[in-house]
Amino acid sequence: MVPLRPTERIDDLLTYDLKIIQSEEVFSFSMDAVLLGRFCSLPPKGRVIDLCTGNGVVPLLLSTRTKADIWGVEIQERLADMAVRNALLNDLGERLHMIQGDLKTIHETLGHGQFDAVTVNPPYLPVPSGEQNVNEHFAAARHEIHCKLEDVIAACAKLVKAGGKVAMVHRATRLVDIISLMRQYRLEPKRIRYVHARAGEEAMMVLIEGMKDGKPEIRTLPPLIVYDENQEYCKELKDIYYGGRASLEFS
Amino acid sequence: MVPLRPTERIDDLLTYDLKIIQSEEVFSFSMDAVLLGRFCSLPPKGRVIDLCTGNGVVPLLLSTRTKADIWGVEIQERLADMAVRNALLNDLGERLHMIQGDLKTIHETLGHGQFDAVTVNPPYLPVPSGEQNVNEHFAAARHEIHCKLEDVIAACAKLVKAGGKVAMVHRATRLVDIISLMRQYRLEPKRIRYVHARAGEEAMMVLIEGMKDGKPEIRTLPPLIVYDENQEYCKELKDIYYGGRASLEFS
Repeated sequence: MVPLRPTERIDDLLTYDLKIIQSEEVFSFSMDAVLLGRFCSLPPKGRVIDLCTGNGVVPLLLSTRTKADIWGVEIQERLADMAVRNALLNDLGERLHMIQGDLKTIHETLGHGQFDAVTVNPPYLPVPSGEQNVNEHFAAARHEIHCKLEDVIAACAKLVKAGGKVAMVHRATRLVDIISLMRQYRLEPKRIRYVHARAGEEAMMVLIEGMKDGKPEIRTLPPLIVYDENQEYCKELKDIYYGGRASLEFS
Repeated sequence: MVPLRPTERIDDLLTYDLKIIQSEEVFSFSMDAVLLGRFCSLPPKGRVIDLCTGNGVVPLLLSTRTKADIWGVEIQERLADMAVRNALLNDLGERLHMIQGDLKTIHETLGHGQFDAVTVNPPYLPVPSGEQNVNEHFAAARHEIHCKLEDVIAACAKLVKAGGKVAMVHRATRLVDIISLMRQYRLEPKRIRYVHARAGEEAMMVLIEGMKDGKPEIRTLPPLIVYDENQEYCKELKDIYYGGRASLEFS
């Protein structure tokens, strides 16, 4: 049995045959992580790494799409510990390697250019001056306290091999910084997809994937519109979140 | 009377109360120009310039949205001559200033930082090795023969004033080059809109606008989906192309 700490609970991980330990005291997985886990390109086998992994939700999701070994790196002890137990809880302890560490120095342990694919759902918000979230776990997940965007992209560039892929989800408003930094670190952006809450609204989030030393030419995928005109999830999200139950719950 | 040259004809310019001289022997205006003319930010008055103006369609369209004086610059003699006559044909000779010139040197005549807004619908395609369009007029409008993307963005940056806007339409696949060059030339991208032929398809074109010395933060507008599920223009395009006639022609 995998032990649960106080306040922790075990949730179903969407329609996948997976469970996940979460706690209201720390950051739970978000739609962004789910979309990243579907968007990114993956090798059929090999080595994949997820940075800012939190409780390890992205590696769990990726395990359903590839036979690769998957690493997860999280700087917060408490979340990294949950990630380790989430791998065990799903009998994925041999293939999922969850470690506590700092993405800025993790290449010293894991090596340069050793990964076929890198994923990351980094903190989105600048470090605030005053109104920072008082819960340190939420603050670290949301604000650029432990790492700035450039740290994240530099870390991805060190870990990925030539021709390998780096996929990120971020606020759409940061697009120019993301693209500029990716090119600066030789992660040529190759695929992009925007997430709009509703048709007719501006994009909230952007999913973007670059290839180490790839040739310049980017594909812009069809937008993902989260809510339809009835304020229900679009079919793509219903399938992810509810699967066969969608027709019952939304009829 | 404005004279017509052989092969030229006068067309209605969509639903606007405007006429336009075109010829099948040279490049006619495209949907891209129409979308650019609607997308760009304009000052209520002041000075606006359109580069790669062709027969002057964008300045004509802009004249319906602003009282500014509008310049148009075209390198091809024959198209620049059509642009001059298109201004006269619409009694806009006092406000539209169509000139034959090279965007790479036009700031020497028109000055640095003299324009509130710049628009450009540049040639999209790299200079081909063999299969180039044999008609020199089409080739120059489509291929980067007279100017490369960097020349275009450098010219925009010279002409626009601090805080002024530069709007461009281009192939969506060139996004990374466009964004990188805009930032390099201090035209911070602030608004972006993708054009998809159909829902569920990748973007064909991108409309992007930068502000000279603007602060980093970009808004991604709702996508424009050209054709609906009946293979008809979407409402936004029907309104532009057919106006009140849409209900008759598409009922």
